[in-house]
Amino acid sequence: MITRAQLIGQIKQKKSFLCVGLDTDIEKIPEHLKSHPTPVLEFNRQIIDATKDICVAYKPNSAFYESRGVPGLQSLIATWKYLPKDCLNIVDAKRGDIGNTSDKYAEAFFDEQASGMSFDAITVSPYMGSDSVTPYLKYEGKWVIILALTSSAGSRDFQYLTTEQGLLYETVIKKANTWAGADRLMYVVGATKSAEFTTIRQYAPDNFLLVPGVGAQGGSLEEVCRYGMTKDCGLLVNASRSIIYASGGRDFADAARAEALKIQQMMEVELEKARVI
Amino acid sequence: MITRAQLIGQIKQKKSFLCVGLDTDIEKIPEHLKSHPTPVLEFNRQIIDATKDICVAYKPNSAFYESRGVPGLQSLIATWKYLPKDCLNIVDAKRGDIGNTSDKYAEAFFDEQASGMSFDAITVSPYMGSDSVTPYLKYEGKWVIILALTSSAGSRDFQYLTTEQGLLYETVIKKANTWAGADRLMYVVGATKSAEFTTIRQYAPDNFLLVPGVGAQGGSLEEVCRYGMTKDCGLLVNASRSIIYASGGRDFADAARAEALKIQQMMEVELEKARVI
Repeated sequence: MITRAQLIGQIKQKKSFLCVGLDTDIEKIPEHLKSHPTPVLEFNRQIIDATKDICVAYKPNSAFYESRGVPGLQSLIATWKYLPKDCLNIVDAKRGDIGNTSDKYAEAFFDEQASGMSFDAITVSPYMGSDSVTPYLKYEGKWVIILALTSSAGSRDFQYLTTEQGLLYETVIKKANTWAGADRLMYVVGATKSAEFTTIRQYAPDNFLLVPGVGAQGGSLEEVCRYGMTKDCGLLVNASRSIIYASGGRDFADAARAEALKIQQMMEVELEKARVI
Repeated sequence: MITRAQLIGQIKQKKSFLCVGLDTDIEKIPEHLKSHPTPVLEFNRQIIDATKDICVAYKPNSAFYESRGVPGLQSLIATWKYLPKDCLNIVDAKRGDIGNTSDKYAEAFFDEQASGMSFDAITVSPYMGSDSVTPYLKYEGKWVIILALTSSAGSRDFQYLTTEQGLLYETVIKKANTWAGADRLMYVVGATKSAEFTTIRQYAPDNFLLVPGVGAQGGSLEEVCRYGMTKDCGLLVNASRSIIYASGGRDFADAARAEALKIQQMMEVELEKARVI
């Protein structure tokens, strides 16, 4: 469990707002790990050990574990257990269903006794409205991170539709802000959308934004910070592939650290510019 | 794998368009099963045996299995293996993510070699646009069932917003129809929304609609059929709790059959009225 104050404390101490995305694909891990009894877990452990002092959050992407059935789920659970508890542990699951089903997803990701895992935060899809979100808020201190404006081409299909209450993604933020405060809710906003950060900050002045799309998807860290950073930082910038697959060889963990460090150093500059540190 | 023609054939032969929802909650199964080595699977097996000649589809709700971690996933996989292959096997997972992640969810639910399961169909959330849908369509013959208008209170939050292209749920249907035809795409439309079925049939004249909300949630079968049925039926009406928990005792399977039979008999009347049979 990690509170907003603790998260901000970590950011100031580590001079970083980096989230490392553990989208670990068994096809893409180095050859020498493939004969390991638990290759994905071993890969994640080495990545975590190499980056934990320079990032403030980890985000395993559930799909990459679910795709391998039971061993995949076992490696997700074991990865959760290994995650440093002073970092924010996010499961990227993008669930969204009616109330009695969301209750079950909340057990799956927030209730260790039920499922073996208890992440600090989960990503959630807003399409089904309040049902999709409020069941997770029953778990005291846990975070819900709602999809607002995503980074891929498909975001154009619906998120930018003009509604009577503004663009759809703006409407999502305005409505969701009535369900909980900035101590429990974050929003996903893609780094490829830096022009929109100004508008988003009108509706979500204090919420942390989880920002994917820096790195492999081409978003600019500087642009994101210019329009999205607050006096408390207010940003968690995620990088997955660019860090974890920085090298495909035996030096993968060192290469991941080097890549994470490059991003951390840019983040330090931005934090100073915005006088967060 | 089951084609549109095979599904219509099943409906005509069984005089039923019933989908049995396997939202199996270990807390709610009869006491005498709780000491069974695989209680959820045993419950599902008996429900399936008792209903397979009077329903045309089964829909395990992934959340109820995920909530129990590894044993839960094992029971979902074992349930999938036991499902009759002449019925449409739907996994209610409501996933939705960018392309490379949707590829992994598709492996999780459509690729037996990768995950141990290969359902015929998956429910998908449209918020992230084409990315959320097209990766599943790469699996020849598999179905994607897109959330359009859902049955719970939260559906009011966003699905009815007026956009420049019509109400949001109408826009979802119109856009999704450009991605695939009625042989691969279905839509989720809640039974509590019978007034809207007329509009939906304007945009999706031939698509099958998966209709939850009859039974526990209070929707009327007759109303749904009046406005939603096509010459090929075009409806799969789901009931979960009202069937599987019809009795909490040792007679649960007989009670489930009796409840399913009641619905099937109403369905037969509707199919005759609409001259499908």
